[in-house]
Amino acid sequence: MPESKNFHMSPGEFRRYGRAVVDWIADYYETIETFPVLSQVKPGQISDQLPDMPPETGEAFDRILKDVDDILLPGVTHWQSPNFFAYFPANASGPAILGELLSAGLGVQGMLWSTSPACTELETRVLDWLVDMLALPEGFKSTAKGGGVIQDSASGAALCAVLAARERVTGHGVNVKGCREPLVAYVSTQTHSSVEKAVKIAGVGSDNLHLIPVDADFALRPEALAEQIKIDHKAGCTPFFVCGTVGTTSSNAMDPLPEIGRICREEGLWFHVDAAMSGTAALCPEYRHIHAGLELADSYCFNPHKWMFTNFDCDCFFVKDRETLVRTLSILPEYLRNTASNSGEVIDYRDWHVPLGRRFRSLKLWFVLRHYGVEGLQHHVRKHVQLAQDFAGWVDAAKEFECVAPAPLNLVCFRHTSGEAFNKELVERLNRSGKLFLTHTTLNDQYVLRMCIGQTHTDERHVKRAWHLIQDTAEKIEQDGLVP
Amino acid sequence: MPESKNFHMSPGEFRRYGRAVVDWIADYYETIETFPVLSQVKPGQISDQLPDMPPETGEAFDRILKDVDDILLPGVTHWQSPNFFAYFPANASGPAILGELLSAGLGVQGMLWSTSPACTELETRVLDWLVDMLALPEGFKSTAKGGGVIQDSASGAALCAVLAARERVTGHGVNVKGCREPLVAYVSTQTHSSVEKAVKIAGVGSDNLHLIPVDADFALRPEALAEQIKIDHKAGCTPFFVCGTVGTTSSNAMDPLPEIGRICREEGLWFHVDAAMSGTAALCPEYRHIHAGLELADSYCFNPHKWMFTNFDCDCFFVKDRETLVRTLSILPEYLRNTASNSGEVIDYRDWHVPLGRRFRSLKLWFVLRHYGVEGLQHHVRKHVQLAQDFAGWVDAAKEFECVAPAPLNLVCFRHTSGEAFNKELVERLNRSGKLFLTHTTLNDQYVLRMCIGQTHTDERHVKRAWHLIQDTAEKIEQDGLVP
Repeated sequence: MPESKNFHMSPGEFRRYGRAVVDWIADYYETIETFPVLSQVKPGQISDQLPDMPPETGEAFDRILKDVDDILLPGVTHWQSPNFFAYFPANASGPAILGELLSAGLGVQGMLWSTSPACTELETRVLDWLVDMLALPEGFKSTAKGGGVIQDSASGAALCAVLAARERVTGHGVNVKGCREPLVAYVSTQTHSSVEKAVKIAGVGSDNLHLIPVDADFALRPEALAEQIKIDHKAGCTPFFVCGTVGTTSSNAMDPLPEIGRICREEGLWFHVDAAMSGTAALCPEYRHIHAGLELADSYCFNPHKWMFTNFDCDCFFVKDRETLVRTLSILPEYLRNTASNSGEVIDYRDWHVPLGRRFRSLKLWFVLRHYGVEGLQHHVRKHVQLAQDFAGWVDAAKEFECVAPAPLNLVCFRHTSGEAFNKELVERLNRSGKLFLTHTTLNDQYVLRMCIGQTHTDERHVKRAWHLIQDTAEKIEQDGLVP
Repeated sequence: MPESKNFHMSPGEFRRYGRAVVDWIADYYETIETFPVLSQVKPGQISDQLPDMPPETGEAFDRILKDVDDILLPGVTHWQSPNFFAYFPANASGPAILGELLSAGLGVQGMLWSTSPACTELETRVLDWLVDMLALPEGFKSTAKGGGVIQDSASGAALCAVLAARERVTGHGVNVKGCREPLVAYVSTQTHSSVEKAVKIAGVGSDNLHLIPVDADFALRPEALAEQIKIDHKAGCTPFFVCGTVGTTSSNAMDPLPEIGRICREEGLWFHVDAAMSGTAALCPEYRHIHAGLELADSYCFNPHKWMFTNFDCDCFFVKDRETLVRTLSILPEYLRNTASNSGEVIDYRDWHVPLGRRFRSLKLWFVLRHYGVEGLQHHVRKHVQLAQDFAGWVDAAKEFECVAPAPLNLVCFRHTSGEAFNKELVERLNRSGKLFLTHTTLNDQYVLRMCIGQTHTDERHVKRAWHLIQDTAEKIEQDGLVP
């Protein structure tokens, strides 16, 4: 068959179109503030513009790229906009994007050490670096008995932690015999839903996830945890797992790790710590207090794909005892046997998470760490925290607004004093304006606005403008009156 | 703080370095055959060249890219080499790589419809297209009661299938109460290990995964399945799940889907079909017989990241009853509530898999489908199958070699007639040569070589050269004699 009709993109075409996409992205970032942050399309609006039937013959790349602009872009919510203050950030950066590109180009599958030694060894080294960079306990290093691995998300990390905990408490029996014991796991009422999902997936059941009440600052109350564990023991259940959070999703509350950790030690429970967004703050010595007590944890995760300029997916999951994790997830069919694995000298990361296959994700993380250096990362974390603190100050100083939770880092929870309907209308109008995007939560049965500052290019002017817009919009609602 | 010292990669730098990485990848593909396919490094060899401590200050991007060449590249196993015949392929292509790049650049988080409608709607449409392209049952379409979703891997798909099956059989109780019933799942002795992993994760226990024997062609024996289900019922267990495989990992065996499907219907078991690599063959009408009986399946997956030119990760998972899947995995905390989700008019894909966050993965798949068109994809699938059939013919014609399993598509299992030690030495020498990479398996207690043809740029000359190299190496071993 003639080479000319082989349908592949030729190297020359790849260079040309590759440049076009690189330029597209650079242009996108230069104009990103001109798009409405939250996509304004209606359900089905993008779908309706896509053909019902797949393309029979190939199309020119230029045309595909044009459809990205014409069809897709209106349906994009611009997570990389400096005016994105919703949820948690999912920030990206030049070096991360290029790391992802290189990873896609190499196209290696790092399931085993032998299927690309560099993929495994770079990941191990970079995750050991992070232990130093965040001043995490030395026991999380691969040079000790622990180690780190890149997971897809904090959900994946929570699932692996629950599974390893489940296996440890049942004397390595559950994997073989099934989950027959009434196991009990503990989180606070503020813990991320991913732990409930993990407990359901693991066959423990959400009835057996006990929600511990929180204090006035929305942090888990350790004495309530201790009490509940006693009750569950008496009821014939087997407590096995606690998740503490460094920076809850709703309000960035900090659970008291030292107290929770001591209870877990005494009771022999697995202690997992989820610092998905806030862990990054520990790059700066002045914020490292958030990790006090972490030496008592069995596992820990934080997401460079949230606040460390590394595009999704990149969750860093650390365990103190890698042997238990690997035993929990390891399966060794004949077709994956190889000399290196048999030697016991290497790490096969497929045994550290659910999927077998894995991309070369440490590449983008390595690019980010080397491009910015610790110094550059600290600079931006400090700036974001400072901007959030400024914002909290403006809210406090305004008579119609109030902060409704402590703002230890880069998230401010606040509300207008005029009640739920007013605040709902406020969020609605702000997001419909396209000028910024923020989301809500509920704290103490109050509808609350969340202002999370962590996008790569968010500067003082964006936060100032957001505050003015919030004030102006509130005034406008007051003038208009609320439609009941 | 001065803009000049903001540590970010400027748009101008991004354009320059972006081009550099695009050119690096183009150069890589043009020279890929000069590298040893299987990395020849020793454990620790890459690690030893990486600094112990993280970089304090940022470094120039050129220097980082130089280290990719100098430090990492020797540790890369070249999955994209046309001389890669190991495991299953994980092929990539120009449009897929550029789709991944664009996805990283946009950096959207598609957890909810509202967090980027285009991310959800393009995925739904492209997966509906695939139902047409592969002539899958119409019930897998989103326009029916089913639907498709991109998962990270066939492991993730198998886990979701097991979880939905577990939930369905227990009357929606396991998620709440925990997995107390003795559930039983069924696979053949040849089924991929990911199903065992899923059964362990779900708390069912590997003791409760019953391995059904296979026939002479390594396909599951349906009468043995029916018999085992009867035995398990009598023992007070609850059969709930069967996985059939279209193209087993070891030998590409085809399980008899119609017979398995009928048993599942009669017994009310969830029937999952794993066609990870081989599903792609159904692009061509002449190979669609591999999916006969698929209309009886509850769920199905195949991996465009194996044999459809779309870089990892991209597993397409289809269910016939999306309501059960969503109910199994759905959790709705306040901070994720939004108008669109409440309306019930949209898909929120976070409820279709384990992770909450998700990349814009349909972009690369869309790029591939549009760049190649059905015609281009068919061309390459046909070529790969033809090359494998040619190879099988050469093996059959050679007196010292024999095929040891049917080769229905692009995988040939074969051996030298001189026994296990000889074949082990053969694989070892071939892979050490760096000229190709193939792996082994065990079939009927025989050590067997696997030649899997599916890399993007594998042409006739590569397969011919591989066969000559195999023959020459075998001759050399005969001359040298085996070291005992």
